[in-house]
Amino acid sequence: MTKQSEEFNYEAYGLRLRIENPTGRPCSEGLEVFLDEEIAIKVLDHGFVRVVDYMGNDDSIVQAARVSYGKGTKSVQDDRGLIRYLMRHRHTTPFEMCEIKLHIKLPIFVARQLIRHRTASVNEISARYSILDKEFYLPEPEVLAEQSRINNQGRGVVLEEAKAFEVLDILRNDAMNVYGHYERFLGDEYKLARELARMDLTLNYYTQWYWKTNLHNLLHFLTLRLDTHAQYEIRMYAEAMATIAKNWVPMAYDAFEDYRLGAVTLSKHELSILKECLHEEKLALKIMDKGNIILSKREKEELLAKFGLVWGEK
Amino acid sequence: MTKQSEEFNYEAYGLRLRIENPTGRPCSEGLEVFLDEEIAIKVLDHGFVRVVDYMGNDDSIVQAARVSYGKGTKSVQDDRGLIRYLMRHRHTTPFEMCEIKLHIKLPIFVARQLIRHRTASVNEISARYSILDKEFYLPEPEVLAEQSRINNQGRGVVLEEAKAFEVLDILRNDAMNVYGHYERFLGDEYKLARELARMDLTLNYYTQWYWKTNLHNLLHFLTLRLDTHAQYEIRMYAEAMATIAKNWVPMAYDAFEDYRLGAVTLSKHELSILKECLHEEKLALKIMDKGNIILSKREKEELLAKFGLVWGEK
Amino acid sequence: MTKQSEEFNYEAYGLRLRIENPTGRPCSEGLEVFLDEEIAIKVLDHGFVRVVDYMGNDDSIVQAARVSYGKGTKSVQDDRGLIRYLMRHRHTTPFEMCEIKLHIKLPIFVARQLIRHRTASVNEISARYSILDKEFYLPEPEVLAEQSRINNQGRGVVLEEAKAFEVLDILRNDAMNVYGHYERFLGDEYKLARELARMDLTLNYYTQWYWKTNLHNLLHFLTLRLDTHAQYEIRMYAEAMATIAKNWVPMAYDAFEDYRLGAVTLSKHELSILKECLHEEKLALKIMDKGNIILSKREKEELLAKFGLVWGEK
Amino acid sequence: MTKQSEEFNYEAYGLRLRIENPTGRPCSEGLEVFLDEEIAIKVLDHGFVRVVDYMGNDDSIVQAARVSYGKGTKSVQDDRGLIRYLMRHRHTTPFEMCEIKLHIKLPIFVARQLIRHRTASVNEISARYSILDKEFYLPEPEVLAEQSRINNQGRGVVLEEAKAFEVLDILRNDAMNVYGHYERFLGDEYKLARELARMDLTLNYYTQWYWKTNLHNLLHFLTLRLDTHAQYEIRMYAEAMATIAKNWVPMAYDAFEDYRLGAVTLSKHELSILKECLHEEKLALKIMDKGNIILSKREKEELLAKFGLVWGEK
Repeated sequence: MTKQSEEFNYEAYGLRLRIENPTGRPCSEGLEVFLDEEIAIKVLDHGFVRVVDYMGNDDSIVQAARVSYGKGTKSVQDDRGLIRYLMRHRHTTPFEMCEIKLHIKLPIFVARQLIRHRTASVNEISARYSILDKEFYLPEPEVLAEQSRINNQGRGVVLEEAKAFEVLDILRNDAMNVYGHYERFLGDEYKLARELARMDLTLNYYTQWYWKTNLHNLLHFLTLRLDTHAQYEIRMYAEAMATIAKNWVPMAYDAFEDYRLGAVTLSKHELSILKECLHEEKLALKIMDKGNIILSKREKEELLAKFGLVWGEK
Repeated sequence: MTKQSEEFNYEAYGLRLRIENPTGRPCSEGLEVFLDEEIAIKVLDHGFVRVVDYMGNDDSIVQAARVSYGKGTKSVQDDRGLIRYLMRHRHTTPFEMCEIKLHIKLPIFVARQLIRHRTASVNEISARYSILDKEFYLPEPEVLAEQSRINNQGRGVVLEEAKAFEVLDILRNDAMNVYGHYERFLGDEYKLARELARMDLTLNYYTQWYWKTNLHNLLHFLTLRLDTHAQYEIRMYAEAMATIAKNWVPMAYDAFEDYRLGAVTLSKHELSILKECLHEEKLALKIMDKGNIILSKREKEELLAKFGLVWGEK
Repeated sequence: MTKQSEEFNYEAYGLRLRIENPTGRPCSEGLEVFLDEEIAIKVLDHGFVRVVDYMGNDDSIVQAARVSYGKGTKSVQDDRGLIRYLMRHRHTTPFEMCEIKLHIKLPIFVARQLIRHRTASVNEISARYSILDKEFYLPEPEVLAEQSRINNQGRGVVLEEAKAFEVLDILRNDAMNVYGHYERFLGDEYKLARELARMDLTLNYYTQWYWKTNLHNLLHFLTLRLDTHAQYEIRMYAEAMATIAKNWVPMAYDAFEDYRLGAVTLSKHELSILKECLHEEKLALKIMDKGNIILSKREKEELLAKFGLVWGEK
Repeated sequence: MTKQSEEFNYEAYGLRLRIENPTGRPCSEGLEVFLDEEIAIKVLDHGFVRVVDYMGNDDSIVQAARVSYGKGTKSVQDDRGLIRYLMRHRHTTPFEMCEIKLHIKLPIFVARQLIRHRTASVNEISARYSILDKEFYLPEPEVLAEQSRINNQGRGVVLEEAKAFEVLDILRNDAMNVYGHYERFLGDEYKLARELARMDLTLNYYTQWYWKTNLHNLLHFLTLRLDTHAQYEIRMYAEAMATIAKNWVPMAYDAFEDYRLGAVTLSKHELSILKECLHEEKLALKIMDKGNIILSKREKEELLAKFGLVWGEK
């Protein structure tokens, strides 16, 4: 046990160790590091993502798949190949066998996007019973400019730095102003119910929640929210979660990057156009040329089949 | 067709009829009235609930149950009895066979509560792509006072009318103020992206969405949100939906009122205390005394059984 | 009303009309035809799929999307383009706004596959309360042979016709035999509980259920079960449902065929290989050559972007 | 670490320890014992339920609730009280924060009931790819008799022992007979595809799966399937799972027994009858008489309120 702690080198991370218990459950070495209460991945100006609990690891995916597909060899190579096969062919149920619980602090307008992923279990700090902290999100000036540039293309010049600071001043003033009123509402002068007073807060105030989901749904969330079309703010949370996923289930995350994040889908019409523009011989040669680490034998056949070609036919 | 329109007496409702099509689908007479685009149940100061579409009626529940429980007589009496039996014994799947789609306009802080019911399908007006209207919620002064009274019991005097008006003035000013900034942000001066500008709006601004759910989940929602512990604002939406449900599936709603809304649950310990405090003979007499319309024969036996008594034993 | 009936020409279909009611709900002309109780799409030897009820049509998808993405022109062309855009970019929530309820009769081993799609509402005939009919599935001899060929490739010769008939004889005898026992168990000799007697039936006995799901989930089901890797028997049910979907929401189904059924996904590595094997100029020319009906202007740009090319750069 | 192992006294349970890893995650002492691969709760003649993995414990429920309801004292007493409060008032989301994964072996007709609980993640042994074992369920003779008595009340004499053995003989012969055919189908004579051969098996054959669900859904499952109206066979599985739940989250399970399993619900009409048959004074006295362990102060008030009485009014 000591040895393992040394391996992680907690002190290098400046971490205070949580009390550790022995468990007979599958563990993820990479994620245990994140469990210390002091660790939280910072996101935006006041937000964070923190791992509270998890269940399962890469082995759990393999184990669930093997119950369906029967026994076979169990070397690491095989496990990796099986996970990649599952990811490639969208056999999603084995990925449901891993679960994670995160503690997230995020602006309300981001929370409203995240909650749309209905497959998670959520316990949010209740502004009916609790008083929200005086913490609100202010974008970096360059984020303001960049997002506005993307969203207003063709509408002329974009936000200059000076203008960006004006916007931030207004946002800051408004947030401070409404929080002042929020506090007055709750004070002895008005004794307003908390559930009512909160309606005066702006959408950039931070909220917090526990958010629990399975790996399949987490990866689906990442596909949508790591995308460049996702709003910058939620993308930052997606990136923090991607870091966590990568440490938790490195094999599955690797497959996810190859077959989902880095993949493109060609429609029926696109495919037919592509077929006409291929150097078929070159493709066959290229494919043969690739080692089985980049493309497994089965993948090579699959790739040719996508373009109506058959292995060895050339 | 003309006849039926007369029956509903659309004109008395001041309605403009939508174009009607013949359909082979089950219809709910009571809900067809609500389908006119002009009809919307007003909620709070600027909100509404409007029926957009629906599927199924009381018969659909009966039909789904009969596929499970086998055939029987089919008089109206039987259908009512079957629906009540299903509701009483929490056989919930037949209620999933009815579906409804509502168009709802509601303050953001209420929307955040409603979205927690994960079993609905939702399409919300996107403040990333659209500009939100200048409409925000201001509570009635007596609502402010009453909610604060309930939530501050024991903390002394409650919000007087004059104070309530002060609160409303602040809320109004803040909402007007941030909307002014929102407009400036979107204007030629800043050309800020809509997805960013919105973060300055307060939580009482209205949003809109289509919200689609099945009857089982709608009734579950009503159980939680018609409750006096639910926040006043969402309760008002629940009441509008209850009106809709009552007109859509009158038999099911009737059963819902008797067996869910008006019911109480006794814990193991409460039950044992109750048993000791019953006039058993009186209970047996009372039960026998009730016609089979109030309690069916089967319910009489069930009630006695709850207190460890057997029919006719006395 | 009469006119529309003539249009459908029910008599040409040999249909007995159900009583029709006027409704203010959106209708799908193509699906109304299926609502007649006498119509059921036959599947396998004794099974069927029958439309019981539905909600929404192509317009409902458009309407839900417009609430999110704002108003625009509303010509038919635009609607089609919007639906195709939604399908291409996996904006799935608008497709959840349509719902369908089917009555399905299917062998138990197929029912066990179908029930794995957890997003449906189901009411099944209960073998605890009802007596199952003496109907069991026997595959066509050529199906037996073909499926075994595919599943045993490399294991030598496949099922000859004579052998296939032997298999069918055994299956038939076993099914008859166990049903005889099932009947005896339920008769006066044993009066066995139905819930117990059923355990002697074989997995090819037919069951029935109502199965209700939304369009998004139906299309997801079709993606998985129209696939050639799906078992033949469930594929036959998927094909019946595909026919229904095509008549219900023709625009959405068309888009589904182009962007989902007929599409292929290229992994990160496959994509990089493909890039090297493309006649880039030919691709640019081909794309420009295509009318905007096959590929919209936006799709042309998307296709180039998938291969790291930019419009007009050439 | 050694100490803790001694505490559990694995050897007294005759257990072979799995390799244990240190973890920073919350642990459930009671459930760690079950994690040994050799432990499986036997159910019926060949079935079992085995804990594969879990996440969270009683503290996790408390922690999730506190994020919503704010901070407070944290003694064990308080935690117990909070869990009981959550259970009583159906605040269900904190119970979703615990997750469990079970390995279950069960007859196919039981699996078909269990799969109806749609909120679980499942990976089942696939009879398309694997060969099912020659294991089938035969009820105990007294189970056959008892279940048939309950289900045939009023239909005269029930299954005698001799008759029960006849039934079992037929079931055994049929199961042996079809398995013989199943083996022949798969052998060199026919080389039938596994996915087809399986259709000849009877519904009492065993299957296996991993079944993963959260605590809230597990408890809902138990409410339905521990009930005396549930079929005996699935009830046996529910009882095994109840044992597991009790060891996993003892506080939550305790509350579950008091407020759900042991509770009764009174309809609106039943309640009004009950009110008339109560010795009100006796009730008030009884309630006051109970210590705060059986009924908390708040519960006493709630109980009186259910019958329209107010504390201290007497």
